Amino acid sequence: MKPRVAIVAPGAMGSAIGHRLDSHGFQVLTSLTGRSDASVRRARQCGMHHRTDVELAHADIFLSIVPPAEAIGLARRFAPLFKEHGRAPVYVDCNAVNPRTAEEIARIVLDSGAAFVDGGIIGGPPRPATPGPAVYCSGPAAPAVTALREGSLRIRVLSEDLGAASALKMSYAGITKGLVALASTMMLGASRNGVAQALYEELAESQPHLLKHFSRSVPDMFGKAYRWVAEMEEIAEFLAPDESGQRFFESAARLYERLARDNAADRVEIDALGAFLARESGSPPAA
Amino acid sequence: MKPRVAIVAPGAMGSAIGHRLDSHGFQVLTSLTGRSDASVRRARQCGMHHRTDVELAHADIFLSIVPPAEAIGLARRFAPLFKEHGRAPVYVDCNAVNPRTAEEIARIVLDSGAAFVDGGIIGGPPRPATPGPAVYCSGPAAPAVTALREGSLRIRVLSEDLGAASALKMSYAGITKGLVALASTMMLGASRNGVAQALYEELAESQPHLLKHFSRSVPDMFGKAYRWVAEMEEIAEFLAPDESGQRFFESAARLYERLARDNAADRVEIDALGAFLARESGSPPAA
Repeated sequence: MKPRVAIVAPGAMGSAIGHRLDSHGFQVLTSLTGRSDASVRRARQCGMHHRTDVELAHADIFLSIVPPAEAIGLARRFAPLFKEHGRAPVYVDCNAVNPRTAEEIARIVLDSGAAFVDGGIIGGPPRPATPGPAVYCSGPAAPAVTALREGSLRIRVLSEDLGAASALKMSYAGITKGLVALASTMMLGASRNGVAQALYEELAESQPHLLKHFSRSVPDMFGKAYRWVAEMEEIAEFLAPDESGQRFFESAARLYERLARDNAADRVEIDALGAFLARESGSPPAA
Repeated sequence: MKPRVAIVAPGAMGSAIGHRLDSHGFQVLTSLTGRSDASVRRARQCGMHHRTDVELAHADIFLSIVPPAEAIGLARRFAPLFKEHGRAPVYVDCNAVNPRTAEEIARIVLDSGAAFVDGGIIGGPPRPATPGPAVYCSGPAAPAVTALREGSLRIRVLSEDLGAASALKMSYAGITKGLVALASTMMLGASRNGVAQALYEELAESQPHLLKHFSRSVPDMFGKAYRWVAEMEEIAEFLAPDESGQRFFESAARLYERLARDNAADRVEIDALGAFLARESGSPPAA
């Protein structure tokens, strides 16, 4: 019999994973309390069933998929219920948190009697006809999560080290989301200094693979910048004791904070980035 | 008749440009005073002729190609000679300095009676059978530099704006050298946390173009990190008033400072970066 899976919360990633599991015959439970009408509709379309927290605490596998700043709070909300009812799930923290945060969550969860798995999701939400993201799992209980492979999820058991999945997620996201911050910073700098067209053309000529990467990854950030702030702060903590690395990502957090505000207001910088990438290479320079 | 070209100093870039001009029939002058034996030998092999500063001040085109921290000093050294002798060259500051530094150099040079061109070199030193770097030039006197196209240099006149070539160089180098700093930071973070192999494999699978880029650009940095420190600081100044961007590049300067020290000492971090990139993808994970 397939394990019953609780997914909290049914956001973009959580509901897409729920949908995939549901379409492979898993029973997928979630909490819709306090969610917006749009979220409730999306969760239902994904085949996710509302349950009370007490009922969710009885699932076989519990996936925590929330913004990084909410990961500890979610563990604290459910730990007393795991403890009280004796039968506790395998709790998988899938969030973009640094390994020390993951260890803190592990302590809360393990104290409650539930099993803990450190998880890290790399890639966007699964969509029909795509393999979907890789879900890395680490820690002694990680093999239990492979039961979700029957749900067509790419579950990858990384190691027995409890923080390994979080460390991998931090390292990978640091490269991809750090690069978006770097590219945005320089494209805005070039635009402020009147050399946007020249920079675009030079990149098109000498770094076409990077320009292509930016054309996809930078606009994809516009609507997510507000969510990336806390993730940049997690990466900064992850990099201790590397002080320059920490400052690098504290700066990236401030950039995404600024771009999130801009995106919600008059979109001066967001539009400048969009305009930069909408350029085309002109006729090649004379020499 | 071809213009006589002074190139100070005959470093890796300066001597390679000198060599290309010499092999196309230009007379190329330089100063070998105080240079190491190896530098003197290289400059001579490149067909560059030693002259006194007074003689160099009589060239037709003067290319300043020095580390960013020396750019203002070089202008100060030659400005009195330009003034004294009446006949002054077109002075091209080719260095990786921010537009405000370029403007300061412009004031020194223009006060001496010489013409000033803001330059920016994008790409590595020219080698036989390669097109060589693009030499961007801006400012009212920039068209004079196109005389060097006969020397098979890719001279690109950007605009009349005095700081445009410097702004373009800062923007481009911010992307390429900032990315090396970012990638190095995250590869070191992954290595410290025991997930280097997993990060390598995930990158090989989902970001192969970035991994390929790092495999070339990160090792290329090892011997140059010490030179990149000042360039990162120039980029930080260039980005004002963007405070997060400034802190980003101040952090990159500190990283390159640290890696330069490491490269000159026990090479702990340099070797960790080399080992990261020397990995191969193992057998693909189970799912």
